[in-house]
Amino acid sequence: MLVVMRHDATDEQVTRVVSAIEAMGFTARPMPGQQRTSIGLVGNDRRVDGSGIEAMAGVAEVIYVTRPYKQVSREWRADNTIVTIAPGVSFGGADVPIIAGPCSVEGEEQIVESARMVKAAGAAALRGGAFKPRSSPYSFQGLGKQGLEFLATARRETGLPIVTEALDEAGADLVAEYADCIQIGARNMQNYSLLKQVGRMKKPVLLKRGMAATIVDLLLSAEYILAEGNDQVILCERGIRGFDTLTRNLFDLSAIPLVQSLSHLPIVADPSHGTGLRDKVTPMGRAAIAAGADGLLVEVHPHPEQALSDGGQTLFPEQFAKLVLEAKAIAGAIGRTITPAPGAVRPPTRGKLALG
Amino acid sequence: MLVVMRHDATDEQVTRVVSAIEAMGFTARPMPGQQRTSIGLVGNDRRVDGSGIEAMAGVAEVIYVTRPYKQVSREWRADNTIVTIAPGVSFGGADVPIIAGPCSVEGEEQIVESARMVKAAGAAALRGGAFKPRSSPYSFQGLGKQGLEFLATARRETGLPIVTEALDEAGADLVAEYADCIQIGARNMQNYSLLKQVGRMKKPVLLKRGMAATIVDLLLSAEYILAEGNDQVILCERGIRGFDTLTRNLFDLSAIPLVQSLSHLPIVADPSHGTGLRDKVTPMGRAAIAAGADGLLVEVHPHPEQALSDGGQTLFPEQFAKLVLEAKAIAGAIGRTITPAPGAVRPPTRGKLALG
Amino acid sequence: MLVVMRHDATDEQVTRVVSAIEAMGFTARPMPGQQRTSIGLVGNDRRVDGSGIEAMAGVAEVIYVTRPYKQVSREWRADNTIVTIAPGVSFGGADVPIIAGPCSVEGEEQIVESARMVKAAGAAALRGGAFKPRSSPYSFQGLGKQGLEFLATARRETGLPIVTEALDEAGADLVAEYADCIQIGARNMQNYSLLKQVGRMKKPVLLKRGMAATIVDLLLSAEYILAEGNDQVILCERGIRGFDTLTRNLFDLSAIPLVQSLSHLPIVADPSHGTGLRDKVTPMGRAAIAAGADGLLVEVHPHPEQALSDGGQTLFPEQFAKLVLEAKAIAGAIGRTITPAPGAVRPPTRGKLALG
Amino acid sequence: MLVVMRHDATDEQVTRVVSAIEAMGFTARPMPGQQRTSIGLVGNDRRVDGSGIEAMAGVAEVIYVTRPYKQVSREWRADNTIVTIAPGVSFGGADVPIIAGPCSVEGEEQIVESARMVKAAGAAALRGGAFKPRSSPYSFQGLGKQGLEFLATARRETGLPIVTEALDEAGADLVAEYADCIQIGARNMQNYSLLKQVGRMKKPVLLKRGMAATIVDLLLSAEYILAEGNDQVILCERGIRGFDTLTRNLFDLSAIPLVQSLSHLPIVADPSHGTGLRDKVTPMGRAAIAAGADGLLVEVHPHPEQALSDGGQTLFPEQFAKLVLEAKAIAGAIGRTITPAPGAVRPPTRGKLALG
Repeated sequence: MLVVMRHDATDEQVTRVVSAIEAMGFTARPMPGQQRTSIGLVGNDRRVDGSGIEAMAGVAEVIYVTRPYKQVSREWRADNTIVTIAPGVSFGGADVPIIAGPCSVEGEEQIVESARMVKAAGAAALRGGAFKPRSSPYSFQGLGKQGLEFLATARRETGLPIVTEALDEAGADLVAEYADCIQIGARNMQNYSLLKQVGRMKKPVLLKRGMAATIVDLLLSAEYILAEGNDQVILCERGIRGFDTLTRNLFDLSAIPLVQSLSHLPIVADPSHGTGLRDKVTPMGRAAIAAGADGLLVEVHPHPEQALSDGGQTLFPEQFAKLVLEAKAIAGAIGRTITPAPGAVRPPTRGKLALG
Repeated sequence: MLVVMRHDATDEQVTRVVSAIEAMGFTARPMPGQQRTSIGLVGNDRRVDGSGIEAMAGVAEVIYVTRPYKQVSREWRADNTIVTIAPGVSFGGADVPIIAGPCSVEGEEQIVESARMVKAAGAAALRGGAFKPRSSPYSFQGLGKQGLEFLATARRETGLPIVTEALDEAGADLVAEYADCIQIGARNMQNYSLLKQVGRMKKPVLLKRGMAATIVDLLLSAEYILAEGNDQVILCERGIRGFDTLTRNLFDLSAIPLVQSLSHLPIVADPSHGTGLRDKVTPMGRAAIAAGADGLLVEVHPHPEQALSDGGQTLFPEQFAKLVLEAKAIAGAIGRTITPAPGAVRPPTRGKLALG
Repeated sequence: MLVVMRHDATDEQVTRVVSAIEAMGFTARPMPGQQRTSIGLVGNDRRVDGSGIEAMAGVAEVIYVTRPYKQVSREWRADNTIVTIAPGVSFGGADVPIIAGPCSVEGEEQIVESARMVKAAGAAALRGGAFKPRSSPYSFQGLGKQGLEFLATARRETGLPIVTEALDEAGADLVAEYADCIQIGARNMQNYSLLKQVGRMKKPVLLKRGMAATIVDLLLSAEYILAEGNDQVILCERGIRGFDTLTRNLFDLSAIPLVQSLSHLPIVADPSHGTGLRDKVTPMGRAAIAAGADGLLVEVHPHPEQALSDGGQTLFPEQFAKLVLEAKAIAGAIGRTITPAPGAVRPPTRGKLALG
Repeated sequence: MLVVMRHDATDEQVTRVVSAIEAMGFTARPMPGQQRTSIGLVGNDRRVDGSGIEAMAGVAEVIYVTRPYKQVSREWRADNTIVTIAPGVSFGGADVPIIAGPCSVEGEEQIVESARMVKAAGAAALRGGAFKPRSSPYSFQGLGKQGLEFLATARRETGLPIVTEALDEAGADLVAEYADCIQIGARNMQNYSLLKQVGRMKKPVLLKRGMAATIVDLLLSAEYILAEGNDQVILCERGIRGFDTLTRNLFDLSAIPLVQSLSHLPIVADPSHGTGLRDKVTPMGRAAIAAGADGLLVEVHPHPEQALSDGGQTLFPEQFAKLVLEAKAIAGAIGRTITPAPGAVRPPTRGKLALG
């Protein structure tokens, strides 16, 4: 922490700030300058709450140097964390899995058909919501436990591991019984009770970025999960709030290399929510792979025009098959591999470009 | 709902959209124009999910006319809802209560001293967090149940009703035992399980606007509470995410007249979180009253420089007393009255300007 | 400037940064900490471009301490600058002038009628655009020089000084011949050639905040004008880009106390563009006065439903008269006075609240 | 245009709106619904200003259906416009040129060395600012005319065409004498006088998106240039204003497929300004190519640590060479080709994926 004094601060004011820092148990290190004095605080091993000091006479501003998160930080752990949600389906290494499926589980037939279709096209995991967070209380809210059972049937039929969302603490226990990876949605990114609960589980968690969350906010929410003992966390960029209403959200792909610099956790991208527009999902899915995403999350439905939710951003089966082909080509161009569907033959390794 | 066709849409494409609308059980009303045809959907009594239709050939865009919320709407109920949290402390009428107190309950002495001080200055209710949502898992998280008991003591000592936050479903039951009004924080504005739970209670709820929430999003979240049977909801503007980091949040005072046009629910303003800067709280608190806010929520601490959280945005006691004086003058100028503290003598009614 | 080194930076890397700072002609002051070393740069009298240093090995980040602006800063000049656009019409003191009139000058009769009407209601200055910046090349672009002549006629008829916009360098010379105050619009806030040109004039300038401008950006644009020798600058908050499309812009009233803390220049508010909605102009105009604005800029038209531009945000004459009455009451409540129209009798001074 | 009436609007209010539309010279087409009546306006061939109608009694809202732009629209011209800035350097077809060079022209040797270096790495055009728009009046403002002469020397030495910025009308004439493509910067995107001036020239224009500009705003600014007769316009995404200060701007790659859907004009991406962070330029440059960008604009300097401006976002020569290699691989994966440097041998055409 660095306390910047006003240019007209008195020596006595500087002395009082030094004393206040020392009263907090840290060392104060004044640095007189030509225009003003700054005072460094050392000896802290995590972020100090300097708001009391901001209130003191003569203080111009307080600047935080130490990052507020810790266990999620790449300084804390240099090597990538690899999160494995099922045998052969890992996030954070050279392989890039694609998770695909409908927005909502609508029935057994629909989800099994979806699972077969996305597997045939090359997906490595199945998504589908049994509990749906909807802005309006009058929208379809999901099939609940029955939806989880239909997902389990789809997994049995195809071998695809399941990623599905938990909305609250009661639901999380139930979801954990069925899912291979528990999704925490954007609206719950700062639902700390839920974060702590999944932090005490042994299941992988896919944590979506909130619409107003900075990258640091996202990492701090992940820190809640790691602080409880669960380091199997996959982050997800899914679009933030923007001012242009042509797209549903503002898909912030810079989050991918930023998170990868700051943290050892893997990060995937969701171009379906990221754009909200079916015909933009494919170019932005390609872009996410090129930016270095560790996976994709894509909405696909056997019959999007009949979907109970998010129909307008959901790919038709043949569009998804084409996206997988293009993703493979792009991944190959940067030395990575799209994870094959369970049971599919892995393509021979090619020579790769060394990318940074 | 209005379906706008592409200018080159064929008659057959128009016919297929008409059939799709009719298959959904509504009436389609085509409106040919010089450039393009539009097709109106009538017969719906709430928002229709048109995303399936967006996917159809020849469709340029789908425009929604019916508003997605209902019970919170002023069209649904023309008169203001008056929310009373304690005898003489009501939101939504001519009276304007000020809720004040520290960010966190830190101890019995601190909260009782705070309550006496804000009552003496003219507050009508006491705020203070027993459960604190903090971005970092390593920050002070509140005293929990003990904090609620200290709040109850402060109420016994001063007569001030209590507004305090619930973070999760377990906590909400506990908070409801102690509080006169349950606060749902900005981070939980779309925690639908929590909203439904407080919707089933008979307690007033203060619902804060989320950082990325549009006004319609805020109203939809309130709709969740009303849909469960609880119409005692006070909305709160507390600042949204903005691009200028000089302030903690972007305090969007236009929300006040907007909400008052669209909804019958009262709306209060929180200039402490709205600005994050102690010396901006007073001018923006005044501005909120002038904009027509139905109440204020202000952070005050007997010793802000020692506060465990939010110290930098917390008023000193004498600053708060001055804000109340100014708020009274402004309220009087627009024909409203700051609600007196419990037991205080109400000032005589003055002639008022008729404001629109 | 403060250079924060990575926690694993070597002594040699620290030494190289120190040398680089010294090579730039400044003094480097290393400050070793427990987690990492920081290096302060002293001896600069304005912001240093540290981007070269950001590129050096071992550097984690560069933090700027010295503010990038200078002459506009309150540290540079402690007392408010008072900008006088005509005898008795000054911005920055206890008086608060209201500038009102139509969006565009549409004809002689329209602008003279507008001037008489706003003067009768209590405005101290007349606004009206002769040169209009329109998003679409097909929208009405203003009457140009003829519009300026009609404004001059309106001034002759009423005594109201004129505020009107210049769009480009050629136009600025022409506008300066007619106007009492030259307006630079939000779209041109970073048109540096235009800023320099009006900086070389002796006319007051009203500089509107750009839609993506931070407060520091706004101050830096004002700095361009002062750096050329013209310190008669009035800043204007008129709404920034926000994510909620219910309002045209996001009216950021916190800009008022922020600018007043950081700068000695006066700042006015434009609730018409700030909201874009006629029935929100009055409450937000009141709020601006309560927040401490040094003036208002309001769109009024004798017949808004016939206005060639911005009709939907333009007040009817009787609405404007009511706004002026309410503004007077609010200003009185905080110890300020709405500047009377030229020739009107100034009300007797009342005892005032001392506001901070 | 569609006028949505309030649900309680009277028949007389509907009739008055119909009359008002007819008085404007258009046809009104009422569409009664169960909840409310809407009234369509037909017969307009461009956007109508409905703000007068918004003011009428009984009107709930006015919705615009016809797009406000015209000549830039893909409905107006179905085929891509190809903009050629020099023989073999075209934007909008299968070829993807990379424009590279330093932020500022700092001297003859620096710009010639830069040109040779970027050509050797595979750039097809040279960028470099002679006139620099800087937020602070005290920052380096460019070498002006001398900088243009140095750029001409670099072109003579390497054959690379030149892209450089014009800041104002006087400068635009000068820039047009030297440049192969005139850049209009983000700060000037709505400087309509400058747009009209370059619209009357016969030179290609590279128009950067403003920081607060929606896609529609960007297209409307381009419309100003086309409306004057110049259709040689390249659009450029360079980052918009966002709330996360980890990056300089928020790089909005969705703009690429959005613009390509709505307009026939080519769009390029500038990952240097888009991120402001050197080590994020490469992944985001790759992502832009994958999203379908028609070109890249990249800041490279022989010695970034000595650059007079933007050093922290400028690539080292070897980083740029690597970006070009990766861009070639990605472009190949989606059936496009990075335009070779002038005089370089074009690689043999490969079979391509058919992308949509």
